[in-house]
Amino acid sequence: MFSLFRRRPVTRSDVPRLTPRREVRELPRVNLEELTPGIVPYLAQAACVQLVLFESLSRAVVDAPTLASKESLAIAASRALDRYERLTAELRGETDDAQAAMQSHFVRLERYAATVRGNSWYELIATIYLAGGILDDFFALLSSGLEPEHRTRISDVVQSDAGREALVDILMDAMNRDYTLSSQLAMWGRRIVGDTLLVARAAIHHSDNEESDELRTEPVFTELIAAHSRRMDGLGLTA
Amino acid sequence: MFSLFRRRPVTRSDVPRLTPRREVRELPRVNLEELTPGIVPYLAQAACVQLVLFESLSRAVVDAPTLASKESLAIAASRALDRYERLTAELRGETDDAQAAMQSHFVRLERYAATVRGNSWYELIATIYLAGGILDDFFALLSSGLEPEHRTRISDVVQSDAGREALVDILMDAMNRDYTLSSQLAMWGRRIVGDTLLVARAAIHHSDNEESDELRTEPVFTELIAAHSRRMDGLGLTA
Repeated sequence: MFSLFRRRPVTRSDVPRLTPRREVRELPRVNLEELTPGIVPYLAQAACVQLVLFESLSRAVVDAPTLASKESLAIAASRALDRYERLTAELRGETDDAQAAMQSHFVRLERYAATVRGNSWYELIATIYLAGGILDDFFALLSSGLEPEHRTRISDVVQSDAGREALVDILMDAMNRDYTLSSQLAMWGRRIVGDTLLVARAAIHHSDNEESDELRTEPVFTELIAAHSRRMDGLGLTA
Repeated sequence: MFSLFRRRPVTRSDVPRLTPRREVRELPRVNLEELTPGIVPYLAQAACVQLVLFESLSRAVVDAPTLASKESLAIAASRALDRYERLTAELRGETDDAQAAMQSHFVRLERYAATVRGNSWYELIATIYLAGGILDDFFALLSSGLEPEHRTRISDVVQSDAGREALVDILMDAMNRDYTLSSQLAMWGRRIVGDTLLVARAAIHHSDNEESDELRTEPVFTELIAAHSRRMDGLGLTA
């Protein structure tokens, strides 16, 4: 069984591979309200994730080898920023000091982003696509545990189109031209899961009972990893 | 008299300093239609300028020292990208291969951007504010020379809010804390004018008569430099 709390190695889940991606949001076994943090920490962390995604995409734009890839990445960057702005607008409605609410999360998330930046432009693209996928899935899942007054509006933001499909084409094209890149990215794709799930873990509401937290959280992580495996499959990589 | 074609040193113009910025677009003495290139080269270059601005802003976001400055810069980046997307949408309406129309301009503009990137984050911020101002003024001016069918729509795009006022605050704050930065940025602000006006010059429609081109172009550059001086003044710098 996968347990992030004990940091065992991530193993492939047995969830059917052909499950449509949308189903990731339907988790009958978990009471998400118990896992969802308050609205301020939720929004602060969700916003910081989008800002960090924007920064990663900006780096990717700057180093993009072609005008076409630059444009695709710029569009994805603008989507991340659009979500960031909508989430911080919500956050400012909840607290007088949105910056303060975000600051510590932001520092932690920038450290995370530096860890998963990779050693090449393609690893960065893979991180944005794969880790961005995990984190988007996670905040989308968690949004269903928010209070009814926030739920729909915020779900709409975190489930809005991230514009990252073009990244799949960029990666597939490159792997078609360079076979060694596939094995490199397969390794990389497995490598970033642990750090990315730690970001998710930090965002979950923690009770006093760590063991019970772990039990309640496990199905969420199982689902996130299953969706990650499907994205890896879509790239022709073994998760 | 300032002449970019002969690359004499840039001198301060005598245009009144308190002219409201909006007036930059009213140039009674120049027939802008003669200077405005065809719609495809106009859009291709205007779009590339915005993409290059976006890239510069992205670099600035990544290296921003505070979350607040990161956010301001990210918003300006998204404005540049919004203009880029609207201009390329127009361009795709005019040509089957928008990428090809942009490619050579883009290569030239990236080389320009590398030249004016500066040696510090603050020089980069100054470049984005000051050179971005010159280029935005220029494409706004030129847009009034476009065919009536394009004029209003494209003027709206290139005159939309660039969201760069926050950059003034960033620079002013830093100069208040570090007096030597003011003289450094004053020098830098003068230094980037020549290269930036060359970008403008390249975008102007050239006839066979270089001397006549020069005469017709001169009032435009005079106006651009006057507006640049006002921006420098606004920063407390001597242009």
